Amino acid sequence: MKLNILGCYSATPRAFTNPTAQVLEINNHIFLIDCGEGTQVEIRRHKIKFNRIKHVFISHLHGDHFFGLVGLISTFRLLTREADLHIYGPKGLKEIITLQLKLSKSWTNYQLIFHELTNTSSEIIFEDEKVEVHTIPLDHRVYTNGFLFKEKEHERKLDMNAVLNTNIDIAYYRKLKQGFDVVNEDGITIKNETVTHAGPTPKSYAFCSDTAYNEAIVPIIKDVTVLYHESTFLEKHAKLAPKTKHSTAIEAAKIAKMANVGTLILGHYSTRYDDLNAFKTEAETCFGTVELANDGKVFEL
Amino acid sequence: MKLNILGCYSATPRAFTNPTAQVLEINNHIFLIDCGEGTQVEIRRHKIKFNRIKHVFISHLHGDHFFGLVGLISTFRLLTREADLHIYGPKGLKEIITLQLKLSKSWTNYQLIFHELTNTSSEIIFEDEKVEVHTIPLDHRVYTNGFLFKEKEHERKLDMNAVLNTNIDIAYYRKLKQGFDVVNEDGITIKNETVTHAGPTPKSYAFCSDTAYNEAIVPIIKDVTVLYHESTFLEKHAKLAPKTKHSTAIEAAKIAKMANVGTLILGHYSTRYDDLNAFKTEAETCFGTVELANDGKVFEL
Repeated sequence: MKLNILGCYSATPRAFTNPTAQVLEINNHIFLIDCGEGTQVEIRRHKIKFNRIKHVFISHLHGDHFFGLVGLISTFRLLTREADLHIYGPKGLKEIITLQLKLSKSWTNYQLIFHELTNTSSEIIFEDEKVEVHTIPLDHRVYTNGFLFKEKEHERKLDMNAVLNTNIDIAYYRKLKQGFDVVNEDGITIKNETVTHAGPTPKSYAFCSDTAYNEAIVPIIKDVTVLYHESTFLEKHAKLAPKTKHSTAIEAAKIAKMANVGTLILGHYSTRYDDLNAFKTEAETCFGTVELANDGKVFEL
Repeated sequence: MKLNILGCYSATPRAFTNPTAQVLEINNHIFLIDCGEGTQVEIRRHKIKFNRIKHVFISHLHGDHFFGLVGLISTFRLLTREADLHIYGPKGLKEIITLQLKLSKSWTNYQLIFHELTNTSSEIIFEDEKVEVHTIPLDHRVYTNGFLFKEKEHERKLDMNAVLNTNIDIAYYRKLKQGFDVVNEDGITIKNETVTHAGPTPKSYAFCSDTAYNEAIVPIIKDVTVLYHESTFLEKHAKLAPKTKHSTAIEAAKIAKMANVGTLILGHYSTRYDDLNAFKTEAETCFGTVELANDGKVFEL
């Protein structure tokens, strides 16, 4: 699992900072999460192949989270993309994109598949054999979802010595990997845990931006490997957080602690701050493992 | 008159080139012409004050000419702009912008005034005491206008020695500047040209992008000081020009020659070319004064 921070600042793009966009690489998927203005250029800078992006997740319809999407879609068209593109985001996004493509007479040759979200409770919006994506309803000024990306349980690993010693037919190996007990050639039931051990722990990533402090998300993101939680403000501007429905670094850390996450990554900083270290310092007063997102930073998880 | 090239490449923004956007400074106006994705960042880089931009001219609704507009409008809002913003562009632009502002619940505090264009012949769309802006109907795949920015005739300058020697009452000076003959204190008619001389020659700038080779524009842009004419292709790809309704460097030069312009600036290069010098070389086979636009370049006219 690898997380590319393309942009992690709030509000407005500047010469050296970008609005929100991330690329999560997980189990051979390349998921684009949010798409502020300029995201397509950042994708190029990160040398991520456009064609590998098949799923885009948009948290909400504030410009710093989606104004780059229509340009990305158009660029895909100009580069003669053929693969389908799935777009998950709030109702209204389809209308915004299709209106612009229609008026510019630039309809895509490839299939654009919109999955418009309206649900206010968590739901599963993508699933294949290895990965699931769930929404995380957030508390912001407009309808907003975070996204939880989680690997499914890995198969159990065979302990080959034990398996061979217990005279199990090869036809049952699959069942063993799936966790079942099996009967061996001698008619004896072999307990699964005596011949297998657990596969690697499934990893998970929760993206939560933008949101006010919201304990309701804790059960959804419980025990995730990595939580990206917005921290627009430092303590000195804490009063602005509930007013604008954003969070402080300490609030992000409180959520991380309650949810028992592995690592907390902070981001979506207000552009009023020149030095980001205070975000880490403040969050660490409440939670141990804190990282700072920054544009261009890559987290190998 | 000063022209800031914020972006001058066609099609798709890349790490080191930007789609079309220009800022023309003329008689104390700051006119923004086209607004591809990322334009607001380029405006910042050029240190042009956001508040001084009161008029935006959009040539057509292909993304590389307007996808940055909604972000610019939103940034103006975040920076608590109060001044009106006038937007001139094809019908449909208002719907695109207002839909996005509505769905993001981010209506502007300042006034957005749309001047939607539908006319297929040249019309005057802005005028004050010193400057006029006319449309230049272009021939592209969607409804497209270029824009002609021209200073009005400057007042004539008084030749003060001559004026004082001919015994003209001060009340008539204004009429003299306007070019009229006047009667002096002795009842004698004084010919205007004997006591005044011409003011500076009015400057003019024509922006023509995107367009196929189109001689119909020649009378509109006749004798302009500077013509920016798109030259998407070199001769080796000349066949693509009519097909995509773009121009070659030589076609741009032919138009410049026919219109007897002062200087031709080339731009809107296809991103397939690494070296721009061939554009200049090819255009110069047909017209003498050719300049190459490039991102970040400033022309003092």
